[in-house]
Amino acid sequence: MLHVHLQFDLTPDQIRYLKTLLDGTICLTVGETPQPARFTILVHGFPRREDLLASPNLHTLIIPWAGPPLETLRLAAQFPWLQVHNLPYNAAPTAEMAVALLLAAAKGILPYDRKFREHRWGPPHPGRRNSVLLEGAMALILGYGRVGRRVAEALRGLGMEVRALRRERRPDDPDHVYGPQALPELLPQAAALVICLPHTPETTGLIGARELALLPPQAVLVNVARGEIVDQAALYHALAERRIFAAGIDVWYHYPDRAQRQRDAPVPPAAFPFHQLDNVVMSPHRAGWSEESEDLRLRHLAAALNAAARGQPLPHRIDPARGY
Amino acid sequence: MLHVHLQFDLTPDQIRYLKTLLDGTICLTVGETPQPARFTILVHGFPRREDLLASPNLHTLIIPWAGPPLETLRLAAQFPWLQVHNLPYNAAPTAEMAVALLLAAAKGILPYDRKFREHRWGPPHPGRRNSVLLEGAMALILGYGRVGRRVAEALRGLGMEVRALRRERRPDDPDHVYGPQALPELLPQAAALVICLPHTPETTGLIGARELALLPPQAVLVNVARGEIVDQAALYHALAERRIFAAGIDVWYHYPDRAQRQRDAPVPPAAFPFHQLDNVVMSPHRAGWSEESEDLRLRHLAAALNAAARGQPLPHRIDPARGY
Repeated sequence: MLHVHLQFDLTPDQIRYLKTLLDGTICLTVGETPQPARFTILVHGFPRREDLLASPNLHTLIIPWAGPPLETLRLAAQFPWLQVHNLPYNAAPTAEMAVALLLAAAKGILPYDRKFREHRWGPPHPGRRNSVLLEGAMALILGYGRVGRRVAEALRGLGMEVRALRRERRPDDPDHVYGPQALPELLPQAAALVICLPHTPETTGLIGARELALLPPQAVLVNVARGEIVDQAALYHALAERRIFAAGIDVWYHYPDRAQRQRDAPVPPAAFPFHQLDNVVMSPHRAGWSEESEDLRLRHLAAALNAAARGQPLPHRIDPARGY
Repeated sequence: MLHVHLQFDLTPDQIRYLKTLLDGTICLTVGETPQPARFTILVHGFPRREDLLASPNLHTLIIPWAGPPLETLRLAAQFPWLQVHNLPYNAAPTAEMAVALLLAAAKGILPYDRKFREHRWGPPHPGRRNSVLLEGAMALILGYGRVGRRVAEALRGLGMEVRALRRERRPDDPDHVYGPQALPELLPQAAALVICLPHTPETTGLIGARELALLPPQAVLVNVARGEIVDQAALYHALAERRIFAAGIDVWYHYPDRAQRQRDAPVPPAAFPFHQLDNVVMSPHRAGWSEESEDLRLRHLAAALNAAARGQPLPHRIDPARGY
């Protein structure tokens, strides 16, 4: 019998669905820590120290998201005997949302729609640039993992010239993949800057005032990775002063807690009034969260747990010290 | 000397730019019909009968858009000696806008953005579908000309399975291209229906209540061709009753006249209140009109006029009776 404890928000329907996917040899508990605690696998995104100490049998933590939170990684790194895994189930929805945000921002979809709903046909900002043509222009993708590669394929389909940057250029990488030192020379040519990097200590603040100043005025920035990778003050000012054309932002600087989330309370996502800008497309951290992807997540989770129950290795192990 | 008369809205800057592109052997007049009228080429989107009779030397009409208006085609068909050309300069911007509208509609970009600007993080319609995943789903493209083929390539880049429908299937067309009779059997599988057809008498009302009823509930309809191809009452009701998920609409049923356009007067684009729906992305017929594409249009026009001045055949001749 494999004891698994699950501590993240699922509806009763989702729990029922998950159970239909699990092998009969898996004993699943959900919610508060069971007494006595005998689980060997904990599925939790934000475990506290006491959660990792609750069960003497615990050997594996599954973080049920694609991007593990830094605080979880820091905590897990203090438990060297603990195997940590993530669930990169949402590469396709995330990449799709990155492309949707890029196109919405580049085409000024929101300001055009808002004005046209008043039946006025002219451009939202007469005499100023109202949209950017992407075909033939250069897209710079930061991070070339599961999401970045899908974004690259979609942007090539739109006729863009794609460059990608990853932490370590590998010998078998194609020509359009660069190492981090190429960033300053690539930014001035980038009509689209799409951020799909894992959040690690090194990527915090990677895009700051200096990097944004290198972008051309028609540039569109998209972030579907983690807010902290882009300096929020620098981003706000670049957008407000229209030094870059627009941005599509899915990931933020301040998040509601569970209680606020449950009552859908208003919680500002940043220290700056991004909501007053019409050249930002705002998305509440949902790139990986379409209806279909909730199913995908449960299927990926079930596959991982079934593998463990059958004595097979779990997929997608990560190193808490490196963050991916 | 080649006499060319130009009668469509260009700014003084654009006229200056156009003149820098033209051969010195071209004499260009702009605006009201010159007296005496000796032009051999007229560039005009909506000529009246008297415009086509004004100059005894007229032999060529260039419609400065990709999609010639039906009334212009009907009028031109009464002048069998007149060669009619269009300017399909805007395939890339139009295709890009089609994909932008599809993704914005499928992802609920507008309702999410609107709610999140009030700092509320939850989905706009709790308990109901708020977005559609396109990857792995089927896209049906109506019209497989310059625009349709580009849309197909972009949607394949997003991992969609693409089918296309054209008026006459050609022997060398690939397997995924169908003739018009396949429409009813393809609609029920289409997560995306993208309309890129020329507007001809046969395509008027092609998508009506019956066709919309065949689409699945998660379907997203995009029209960047001509409003009249989709029955407006049927489309409005399908969206209002959420029998399809969403639509992205760039082309409409009623347009401002020149005077209304100049003062940016409010002119409703349809007989139904589409602006009250949150599952439609509204765009004021601008798919081919980015800043870059205005330059593209002038360059294509200059290339056509220079070809005529050099005694070469003009590109993109169309048959007014067929409409393309």
